[in-house]
Amino acid sequence: MVNEAMFAYGSERSAIREIFAYATARKAEIGEDRVFDFSLGNPSVPAPPAVRDAIVRALEEVPSTQLHGYTPAPGLPEVRSALADSLNRRFATTYSGDDLFLTAGAAASMAMTIRALTSPGDEVMVITPYFPEYRVWIEAAGATCVEVPSKEMSFRLSVGNVQQAITERTAAIIVNSPNNPTGRVYRRETLVRLANVLREANAHREQPIYVISDEPYREISYGQEVSWIPSIYPHTVVCYSYSKALSLAGERIGWVLVPNTLPDAQRVRSSVAGAARALGFVCAPALFQRVVAACADEPADIEAYRQNRDLLCGALGDVGYTFAEPEGAFYLWVRALEPDAQAFCDRARELELLPVPSDSFGVSGWVRVGYCVDTNTIRASLPAWCELARMYRSL
Amino acid sequence: MVNEAMFAYGSERSAIREIFAYATARKAEIGEDRVFDFSLGNPSVPAPPAVRDAIVRALEEVPSTQLHGYTPAPGLPEVRSALADSLNRRFATTYSGDDLFLTAGAAASMAMTIRALTSPGDEVMVITPYFPEYRVWIEAAGATCVEVPSKEMSFRLSVGNVQQAITERTAAIIVNSPNNPTGRVYRRETLVRLANVLREANAHREQPIYVISDEPYREISYGQEVSWIPSIYPHTVVCYSYSKALSLAGERIGWVLVPNTLPDAQRVRSSVAGAARALGFVCAPALFQRVVAACADEPADIEAYRQNRDLLCGALGDVGYTFAEPEGAFYLWVRALEPDAQAFCDRARELELLPVPSDSFGVSGWVRVGYCVDTNTIRASLPAWCELARMYRSL
Repeated sequence: MVNEAMFAYGSERSAIREIFAYATARKAEIGEDRVFDFSLGNPSVPAPPAVRDAIVRALEEVPSTQLHGYTPAPGLPEVRSALADSLNRRFATTYSGDDLFLTAGAAASMAMTIRALTSPGDEVMVITPYFPEYRVWIEAAGATCVEVPSKEMSFRLSVGNVQQAITERTAAIIVNSPNNPTGRVYRRETLVRLANVLREANAHREQPIYVISDEPYREISYGQEVSWIPSIYPHTVVCYSYSKALSLAGERIGWVLVPNTLPDAQRVRSSVAGAARALGFVCAPALFQRVVAACADEPADIEAYRQNRDLLCGALGDVGYTFAEPEGAFYLWVRALEPDAQAFCDRARELELLPVPSDSFGVSGWVRVGYCVDTNTIRASLPAWCELARMYRSL
Repeated sequence: MVNEAMFAYGSERSAIREIFAYATARKAEIGEDRVFDFSLGNPSVPAPPAVRDAIVRALEEVPSTQLHGYTPAPGLPEVRSALADSLNRRFATTYSGDDLFLTAGAAASMAMTIRALTSPGDEVMVITPYFPEYRVWIEAAGATCVEVPSKEMSFRLSVGNVQQAITERTAAIIVNSPNNPTGRVYRRETLVRLANVLREANAHREQPIYVISDEPYREISYGQEVSWIPSIYPHTVVCYSYSKALSLAGERIGWVLVPNTLPDAQRVRSSVAGAARALGFVCAPALFQRVVAACADEPADIEAYRQNRDLLCGALGDVGYTFAEPEGAFYLWVRALEPDAQAFCDRARELELLPVPSDSFGVSGWVRVGYCVDTNTIRASLPAWCELARMYRSL
């Protein structure tokens, strides 16, 4: 009657959404400021004023039929050009607008790129823990999601584990740095080693293994360099989004970059364009194409996230929690105080603390604390985190 | 290296886009007003002022993190509610916000619905001539596109032909009224007969045949009633878009309605939600969710289209062209003056007339003239249409 796989995707419990729904109900019950909802990755920082200015200017300057009409499928030429120029200034590259395909956000970019680069039966490697939707997009393309563990406890990229997981069916590896959920930023030297391993594997294969670099958190790094992977490994396609950088998560605007340095770029671009068609994308939202062109060089406001991170890490460190030191993004990856992350979250919930158990990210025993919330919420939650640790010590 | 099917979709010649690209180049060469580009379906009427007002009001009234942040996957509850209320006022229905899933436009609605309602190997019927992307979405879902001819010359729905094309693999039929490319609006009595034929077929099957009603042109009807199909046949899912009604084609905003009158609606809704996930949709663009809620009862401004239609039909009728009388949408479906539509278009091009040959719509010997252009363009093109007819008469 209906497609069973789609039904399963639509009806399976999403841990993150369920916690968010519980938080909303619980806030109505006992008050906004007494519930500590760390479930979502919705930016808590407003979009920069330049976004509003760009919208107002576009409404004033561009005739309605041009402003709100269809754009070419890959986006407005002048927007793609402006964004390519911005990349060239930052990464000393020589991209043109042709290298960019504007999309309806990172999810669109990723779904299109995975669909473009894999055939049914192929394997796509993901590094655990990983963003749960990767599996959905990989499986929807008819490919297999191969989980490759990161390094134990540090959650850094293990190039050795990647090397061991490569098979003749490997089509691509998804790299996500700054990482959701661990907050890790992969070091340049690690990425160079990864590139060498992939190059070595490619020497024995007809087709190269692609790196799909998922970079929605690129601008949210607390000092660590976020390396530009196409300059390290040529078979890299970059998926970007303005959701976090400009706090535009709901507006669905981002891009896929098939760099002019990628061998056979034209073929890959056609496949990305074809995947956009097949998946039902027509063009990226037109007004926001102009907005991101106007705001391409707008710095992301990450100070609130940094402050939240420092507060949370300081307090949780003081009472003995173990966590991965977050170098980017806005998630703290904390070890649960018992082996069962769900049981730990149940206990945390008694204190109105709502992190996400690690199981849906492909590992057990940890929780993700999304600290893209008001700093007052962080501050108000600290006694509960202490109390939770105390409860476990007294067990 | 890349997915062959996606590569093919991305690299195949799109007749419509190619003509549009030619028109753009030709205009640069000989002047805007001397090229008569009838290729696209981009609205030529500005969005109503209420759209601009709604954007400005949202910027003033809604805090940035709420305005531009993620919405729930099916859309903001208050928006879905407002849109359901609007439908209820128009169609004497009792829908709630739960029946609606907001999408990134009609293409998203259709791709999601086809994915949700079919399994690989199923058949989906389309009525020729038909919008070419139907085939892409059907095949991308692993299903087979079954072409069912409309009535010869009149291009009305042939219920007999539908009946003959039903097999045990038929999962759905796509109904598109007002129709692209023929401008036909299906009569209520025809739809009632279609419903009877489907009901009869369903009696011998485990699963019902779904009607997928693709309604981007619902508001563009020149007097003919556009029947509300869920009130005629219960197994109907409606795909809608504000692209044409509010001239917002580039903003990508629409919805899927799984009506509360559809048996097993909850299961279908879950599948639609799952398809949205699998295809890479996260939520419909947030700002424009609020815009369409504010403009739900805004009447579509179709007077310019009506004027264009009357001008074009009058002049083409006078010199002996045969065409389907357009009852809705903004396309004129004209019989080519020789059997080969492409050859006819080549000759038309010599006079700077740029219609689209019918072959990509699944029939031969006709052309589509998109009259969603400036009325001056229509007027200025009339001598060329006459000259073209004269050329053929003198052959």
